[in-house]
Amino acid sequence: MSHADLSLVDAYWRAANYLSAGQIYLMDNPLLTEPLAPEHIKPRLLGHWGTTPGLNFVYAHLNRIIRERDLDVLFLTGPGHGGPALLANTWLEGTYSETYPDVPRDGEGMRKLFRQFSFPGGVPSHVAPEVPGSIHEGGELGYSLAHAFGAAFDNPGLIVACVVGDGEAETGPLAASWHVNKFLDPISDGAVLPILHLNGYKIANPSLLARIPHDELDSLLRGYGYAPFYVQGDDPDDMHARMAEVLDQVVDEIHRVKQRTDRPRWPMIVLRSPKGWTGPSEVDGVPIENTWRAHQVPLAGVRENPEHLRQLESWLRSYLPGELFDGDGRPRAELSELVPRGDRRMGATPHANGGLLLRELKMPGIRAHAVEVVKQGSTHSEPTRVLGRLLRDVITLNQADFRIFGPDETASNRLDAVFEVTGKQWQAETLPVDEHLVRDGRVVEVLSEHLCQGMLEGYLLTGRHGLFNCYEAFIHIVDSMFNQHAKWLKTHKRLDWRRPIASLNYLLSSHVWRQDHNGFSHQDPGFIDHVMNKKAEVVRVYLPPDTNTLLSVADHCLRSKDYVNVVVAGKNETPDWLDIDEAVLHCTRGAGIWEWASNDEDEPDVVMACAGDAPTVEVMAAVKLLREHLPSLRVRVVNVVDLMRLQPDTEHPHGMPDREFDALFTADRPVIFAYHGYPWLIHRLTYRRTNHHNIHVRGYKEEGTTTTPFDMLVLNDMDRYRLVIDVIDRVPGLGPKAARLRQLMQDQRTRHHAWIREHGEDLPEVRDWTWQ
Amino acid sequence: MSHADLSLVDAYWRAANYLSAGQIYLMDNPLLTEPLAPEHIKPRLLGHWGTTPGLNFVYAHLNRIIRERDLDVLFLTGPGHGGPALLANTWLEGTYSETYPDVPRDGEGMRKLFRQFSFPGGVPSHVAPEVPGSIHEGGELGYSLAHAFGAAFDNPGLIVACVVGDGEAETGPLAASWHVNKFLDPISDGAVLPILHLNGYKIANPSLLARIPHDELDSLLRGYGYAPFYVQGDDPDDMHARMAEVLDQVVDEIHRVKQRTDRPRWPMIVLRSPKGWTGPSEVDGVPIENTWRAHQVPLAGVRENPEHLRQLESWLRSYLPGELFDGDGRPRAELSELVPRGDRRMGATPHANGGLLLRELKMPGIRAHAVEVVKQGSTHSEPTRVLGRLLRDVITLNQADFRIFGPDETASNRLDAVFEVTGKQWQAETLPVDEHLVRDGRVVEVLSEHLCQGMLEGYLLTGRHGLFNCYEAFIHIVDSMFNQHAKWLKTHKRLDWRRPIASLNYLLSSHVWRQDHNGFSHQDPGFIDHVMNKKAEVVRVYLPPDTNTLLSVADHCLRSKDYVNVVVAGKNETPDWLDIDEAVLHCTRGAGIWEWASNDEDEPDVVMACAGDAPTVEVMAAVKLLREHLPSLRVRVVNVVDLMRLQPDTEHPHGMPDREFDALFTADRPVIFAYHGYPWLIHRLTYRRTNHHNIHVRGYKEEGTTTTPFDMLVLNDMDRYRLVIDVIDRVPGLGPKAARLRQLMQDQRTRHHAWIREHGEDLPEVRDWTWQ
Repeated sequence: MSHADLSLVDAYWRAANYLSAGQIYLMDNPLLTEPLAPEHIKPRLLGHWGTTPGLNFVYAHLNRIIRERDLDVLFLTGPGHGGPALLANTWLEGTYSETYPDVPRDGEGMRKLFRQFSFPGGVPSHVAPEVPGSIHEGGELGYSLAHAFGAAFDNPGLIVACVVGDGEAETGPLAASWHVNKFLDPISDGAVLPILHLNGYKIANPSLLARIPHDELDSLLRGYGYAPFYVQGDDPDDMHARMAEVLDQVVDEIHRVKQRTDRPRWPMIVLRSPKGWTGPSEVDGVPIENTWRAHQVPLAGVRENPEHLRQLESWLRSYLPGELFDGDGRPRAELSELVPRGDRRMGATPHANGGLLLRELKMPGIRAHAVEVVKQGSTHSEPTRVLGRLLRDVITLNQADFRIFGPDETASNRLDAVFEVTGKQWQAETLPVDEHLVRDGRVVEVLSEHLCQGMLEGYLLTGRHGLFNCYEAFIHIVDSMFNQHAKWLKTHKRLDWRRPIASLNYLLSSHVWRQDHNGFSHQDPGFIDHVMNKKAEVVRVYLPPDTNTLLSVADHCLRSKDYVNVVVAGKNETPDWLDIDEAVLHCTRGAGIWEWASNDEDEPDVVMACAGDAPTVEVMAAVKLLREHLPSLRVRVVNVVDLMRLQPDTEHPHGMPDREFDALFTADRPVIFAYHGYPWLIHRLTYRRTNHHNIHVRGYKEEGTTTTPFDMLVLNDMDRYRLVIDVIDRVPGLGPKAARLRQLMQDQRTRHHAWIREHGEDLPEVRDWTWQ
Repeated sequence: MSHADLSLVDAYWRAANYLSAGQIYLMDNPLLTEPLAPEHIKPRLLGHWGTTPGLNFVYAHLNRIIRERDLDVLFLTGPGHGGPALLANTWLEGTYSETYPDVPRDGEGMRKLFRQFSFPGGVPSHVAPEVPGSIHEGGELGYSLAHAFGAAFDNPGLIVACVVGDGEAETGPLAASWHVNKFLDPISDGAVLPILHLNGYKIANPSLLARIPHDELDSLLRGYGYAPFYVQGDDPDDMHARMAEVLDQVVDEIHRVKQRTDRPRWPMIVLRSPKGWTGPSEVDGVPIENTWRAHQVPLAGVRENPEHLRQLESWLRSYLPGELFDGDGRPRAELSELVPRGDRRMGATPHANGGLLLRELKMPGIRAHAVEVVKQGSTHSEPTRVLGRLLRDVITLNQADFRIFGPDETASNRLDAVFEVTGKQWQAETLPVDEHLVRDGRVVEVLSEHLCQGMLEGYLLTGRHGLFNCYEAFIHIVDSMFNQHAKWLKTHKRLDWRRPIASLNYLLSSHVWRQDHNGFSHQDPGFIDHVMNKKAEVVRVYLPPDTNTLLSVADHCLRSKDYVNVVVAGKNETPDWLDIDEAVLHCTRGAGIWEWASNDEDEPDVVMACAGDAPTVEVMAAVKLLREHLPSLRVRVVNVVDLMRLQPDTEHPHGMPDREFDALFTADRPVIFAYHGYPWLIHRLTYRRTNHHNIHVRGYKEEGTTTTPFDMLVLNDMDRYRLVIDVIDRVPGLGPKAARLRQLMQDQRTRHHAWIREHGEDLPEVRDWTWQ
């Protein structure tokens, strides 16, 4: 690298640092054309300076090499708190003003850029969806590297440069993410370049990885499977020279890895630079630069404290803004020599606005996979096994655009038909005994829900499609990641320039009612409740009662955009209730009366409602008992697939108007509702409805252990016998026959208890039960 | 080690393996006194064989060295699925029968031991709370090592032997846990001995760490800071000799580390043994042992398949049960030579039944810390800062029994008074610039909520006290860990022999309403909703409105047992509403009328209810506006501290009877309820109440960004102006004066919007607002 080249990189870096500090402090006088005065300073000083100069350093150097080698680079900001850095760089390179023409690349634009930062009505302080070039917020730490790997899959020409903060590096998800290099295929996938940024400190503590001996750190990173390159120091000239040299080596190494077939050892960079680099080194006699005190705003009370004001001015002028910007506030022409062209600019890459690259998923059609249903409930099938065949064909039709992620459970969840056409991606050692491990496969399995979620998010945000299949109980592991993705989606949908991306689809199987064998720790249906707290415009929950409805729901979800879809479906044999036409119609409606199962002739004595596969079986079994023993009782069966339908249409786009709700659930008849999850959710969704006081919900109430499937229902009072008792207790005037049936049901529950303790399996009449 | 000693270890291991396989398969004929017949086989074969022989191997060898050196060892089973192993070993050593006298250590006891396993009415298949000697379920993978470190803190004489499965090792929390060795103090804390069990496979895949080159694995573990010792092979004799040798070395090394003052490099063991070791090597021509197929039940359909039945019998007999048990089914006397004595038996250690060791927390008394409140609302203080002083004194009084865990936020949450008497524990490198880093401190900070939660759980379960302080939004990171702890507590409380332990206390600060500066990613109050899904008997949620109520709540929570307490409290200046006497009374009641703020004279026109510090301020500000503009309106103010009070007493032990609820909230007047979190929770808690249809709730509805504190309230329609409008819209017949006030309030909201965009901070009348 010539000295002139490095001077340019340094000028660019100084410009970005100036623009970053300016955002934190200034609401006027952006070019310091007059002496800094209190009225130029924002009344509230917000922002994270500490990480920012390091991010600017990396960005400037990446610009240099992108431009020099025409690289396709996506930049991920693990320390997403450093919003000023990305805003500064995208403004400098022009992409910010192209995205937001009201913030032009001139003096007035700079004033707006500064003022809007962390300002009411302005832009958030983090690398939020509003920032061009970003797929990663970084407000909640830990997911950058998993996002990076997800973005790199099936993008063979892409380099994902991912800055990992040393704070973030202490989190669990990040610590696990290093190992994803055992999946990435050098041929068919892109490269991930982790840049571990050791600036040494968090909010109030040193970071662990900055305080272990160099040899130990090196050993750790080599143990993760990387070849680390170190850039370390605080002298800008030395650091520029070293960073340029290392980036050249690293890019050479990436190309070398991608041309070989032996097990890859990807390069990575360790950048050890001071926290708050180039900022105030001391304030009021206390060291700031290179300490945790530089984390947020290094100089406080600037409006009130003339000494701090003076110090701020001298800090800002230390970047020599007059050399960087012309009199109109435009970056000087020579700076543009460092800016990559067009979409090569990291703020303009279409990978960060995945909807631009999104190809519609080719769907194979669900009818070919439907199970034949001559008469409702007369046959049985395993819903997720049949879904596996649909997914197999989705994979065939969409080779480089669709992936399935799962924590070692794809076969356990009975989706293994996919292995007829693909394998599990794997670059670690293989043995002859292995099955389905391949270099380039559509399935990625690792025993970490965090990694599955993170990789899928990265994959979707860069314009592809996918599915996360998981045991229902353990999806709570990613509650917080779901939160952040839902928040991202909400904001993304409100930005015109961000194009729709594929929905994040959860298939939750091995659910609460069939974890009788694994016990209490595996029994938890609460993810639905968690999801319901997020904006109605981004969340959907489906509980298909059988195989064909699962196919219909899956078809709908896989085609959809900008949602999080939660589908809960069993893997065990369950009655086929609806043929494919009925299933599509029922799923389109989202909830409906099953007339073939009802005998109410529009005047029910009781409504038996169900949502979920296990509750549907119990309701149907209860209905059969009622028909047999109380044939004159008019029972209506309502099945709910789309849980959002229960809400008023004022609350959720899928919500039903009250009239429609009353038409299904009546205005005054008792409703016995068997629900898959915690019962109170049904109350929450329906409490504004006319008949709410008459809705009696059964569901999971946190009772369970290792037992039989039917005992799980009994323990939680959702078994058929209990449902019959509920009907008898709620419908007035049923007479002595009902009283006898009630006793019979109680006897059956007692008999069940004794039977399972004696035989270790369920009552024969339960095991062999069929509707037809 | 002599050959005789190793024969004994082998015999013990074979006995445990026999007892493990027996639990999975047999419901009768436990000693194989007659040929195995289908009726001896359980109808449903459940259990995880794969990990079990390895666990048995480790347990037997630990017995040997405990006995030989009189060690105090707590055993943690990361692969908690291997329940049969721990049940077998505790039965063999006698602790199981001491805990459960109905399962004696004889033939009949063995029959019961076998039959009860994974059998209805029997015992769970995992290492659940029912298992003596356990503090770790292991159903949800990833937390064993964090639990181990938590258990080792302040137990200088203890060795926590923690088996980490290679599946579990892929999870985020486990990957991060290795680094906790940078906190553990060799002098004042115990030792953690990680035993990474590479049996090579998960449910359906190889494990990552088993498929990287040896050098890379070694480099990784050294990079984590350990000195690994390897035990590898499949020949039992060789493996016994090697394991005994390594255990001797490792225990020597632990003693050496504990006697030195340089930075410790703790030893660990890597045990590479076949999955399903000593089980069927092939079934139906397919390899089983040393493949993923050994994960659960290696031989299926044994009742129906005579060949499988024969194979099972020969497998079971391969352990030579006749040599291991006498004719009455008692373990032969020579086996007892390996069993440690009394409480040294790992199933009997009091560390695993922490309540036995629990010392009552010495509380300093809250009055000395209370803020003086001469007139309600006339002074201000920072609640968590004052709490910090209480915690400081708790630390002083309970040196080795109390710890605070937090993700780098103890100072940010303004608890830093604790650093007057203690420091942050830290064994990594220190620099002169560092503050409060000490070798032995009561505060543990690491940027991983998973680790904070895991360490605290381990600390509590072994009989100590503690607190987890966290930003409210990011506590969702441990949703799933909370689930598992709540499930553990529920079961633990139902077991007479398990003694009460200290509650798990969450202090959630930096909450949704004051993350205006950090933005949308930091705004999420949903943990409360998540917690509410667990059993009422174990969960409590408190929303103290000011400093003195926070002191009272904290005092109560720190003294409590067997709960999870969630306390949400702000760190920013807030009015002091109650003096300490009023605060204690109010918190004891959990909810009550603030008569000094009300003018309803028992006949309110409207009830203004609030729960949470920010909502309380807004309600009070709205009340003040109403008083000023509509003095004849009778307003009652109700404040709720203990959220559980809102539920009926049939739902939660803290719930209010309907009569009491009606006395507070009236039977027919409009209630405007400003709530800290998502508004629907209040509906869920109150939907059965008389006046529910009249309760109008304001709360967080997922709107937010980087803005001002008051704007967060406006964005979510919970600001004082909106609350006044709500009152006017709900109370009939207020006349033209109210209509004018309504317009004024709307104007104020408009003015607010314009003001913050112009000035970047809140309206002066909001910033300077006081009640008095």
